[in-house]
Amino acid sequence: MLLGAIEAGGTKFVCAIGTEKGEILERVSFATTTPEETLKKVVEFFWNKKIKSLGVGCFGPIDLDKNSKTYGYITSTPKSGWSNYNIVGELKKYFDIPINFDTDVNGAALGEAKWGSGVGLDSLIYLTVGTGIGGGIYTNGTLVHGMTHPETGHIFVSRADGDEYKGKCPYHGDCLEGMASGPAIEERWGSSASELPKNHRAWDLEAYYLAEGLINYILIVSPKKIILGGGVMKQKQLFPLIRKKVIERLNGYVSHKNILEDIENYIVYPKLGDDAGICGALALADLVLN
Amino acid sequence: MLLGAIEAGGTKFVCAIGTEKGEILERVSFATTTPEETLKKVVEFFWNKKIKSLGVGCFGPIDLDKNSKTYGYITSTPKSGWSNYNIVGELKKYFDIPINFDTDVNGAALGEAKWGSGVGLDSLIYLTVGTGIGGGIYTNGTLVHGMTHPETGHIFVSRADGDEYKGKCPYHGDCLEGMASGPAIEERWGSSASELPKNHRAWDLEAYYLAEGLINYILIVSPKKIILGGGVMKQKQLFPLIRKKVIERLNGYVSHKNILEDIENYIVYPKLGDDAGICGALALADLVLN
Repeated sequence: MLLGAIEAGGTKFVCAIGTEKGEILERVSFATTTPEETLKKVVEFFWNKKIKSLGVGCFGPIDLDKNSKTYGYITSTPKSGWSNYNIVGELKKYFDIPINFDTDVNGAALGEAKWGSGVGLDSLIYLTVGTGIGGGIYTNGTLVHGMTHPETGHIFVSRADGDEYKGKCPYHGDCLEGMASGPAIEERWGSSASELPKNHRAWDLEAYYLAEGLINYILIVSPKKIILGGGVMKQKQLFPLIRKKVIERLNGYVSHKNILEDIENYIVYPKLGDDAGICGALALADLVLN
Repeated sequence: MLLGAIEAGGTKFVCAIGTEKGEILERVSFATTTPEETLKKVVEFFWNKKIKSLGVGCFGPIDLDKNSKTYGYITSTPKSGWSNYNIVGELKKYFDIPINFDTDVNGAALGEAKWGSGVGLDSLIYLTVGTGIGGGIYTNGTLVHGMTHPETGHIFVSRADGDEYKGKCPYHGDCLEGMASGPAIEERWGSSASELPKNHRAWDLEAYYLAEGLINYILIVSPKKIILGGGVMKQKQLFPLIRKKVIERLNGYVSHKNILEDIENYIVYPKLGDDAGICGALALADLVLN
């Protein structure tokens, strides 16, 4: 059975044809330009491909409330031309098949649960740390939706002692994204994450903030696994630093063996790697048929 | 149909007989002493009452993992005699009926969703602010379980400018519970919450910390309603202060009408009031039969 997958990012779109087993058979990617130009390429790629459903993992914020007049829209994004854009409605004009629309990170969380680091688990978080910080949450075997969708990157955390950096988030200044995103690293240290030496003290501070965020996710949704992807997490030296700080700061409060004895398998890099997003969209396409 | 409900608290136990409509027909309460003495009273109350199921909303931490050898236990509580106590196992010796065991606050969240402030919603948070701070989370129509259960009171939040108070949490110092629980208020100001004047500056600071916590819950699980109960929340002057701070600190980021236009109905006192806990346990008893 063929399924269609769209990883709709603010910088680029990835479209793929795949199967319900998570295999990607064909893919294309192109820059995100205007909605009209971008969707034209999407439609051309999927046209006549005999896909049974379409999964769309989309940059946000988006409207996921099926009772809302703007269900299927990208809502208040600062990205020029895309604010209040009815992406699902536009796709429906061309493809009369079930479409499963969700955030890119909820898609990635589902993909990792089906085919990646979380196989067999009914609960995990997928967090991407890159230009922004965002998270998808899978709990009790479902992707978390509510009033809107998770915006886990913007939580407030406790500042590191003596840290005077004002933060990079245009909404909140020193929220987690403001303190630990790629652009925050670059503004703070004058070099991008990929250019900083592996032993730079930047990594200790980065691990501090990410650990603060992870602890809050652990205490609120108690995920069975935490999967950290995105450009910044390619700096693998972060993982042991983050794990150590999570244990130190929790200070025995959540006394579970996943944390106390096996944290190397609890806080992990995505098994699907850079394909977490597109495989996630494929997982969304599969889910809507089940 | 008769159902049994137990609100198992660290200070007192409440036991009730009720119906699947949320009516409480009979109740009793007694101090929590030793497990043996306390459970004896529980068994006496329910004996021969012809209940079809039993819901137990319990103080924690507790083990909710049905695959665990210690499922149904109160685990690492500092409360003398209750650590590693198999409360579900003990009840099963006497009552051969379905038992639904969960945290007291998950129970209260379910009770408010069925019969209280959240009727018709599939997503809400119930937070109690009293001797401790704890939260139950209901999302996609299910109570959140994961590696363990939510421990929402212990999240880290951003300190108020110039606040030097070290915090009251024995594990984390200045986590939310450490900064905003009843004992933290009392240590900080030298008077208990109920003795402080309504216009005391304590309330502004208390609202600041609770708002920081609420914002993190909003950004992580996006609840459709936030219900604030417990002894400290009897100080109703806190509600407008908290609502104002949530709006200010979110700064337009979650642009949803519940927050921007109708926050009076978004952050609310429990409709079930002091019965949120026991009605929650009743709701757990009902859920296990459906």
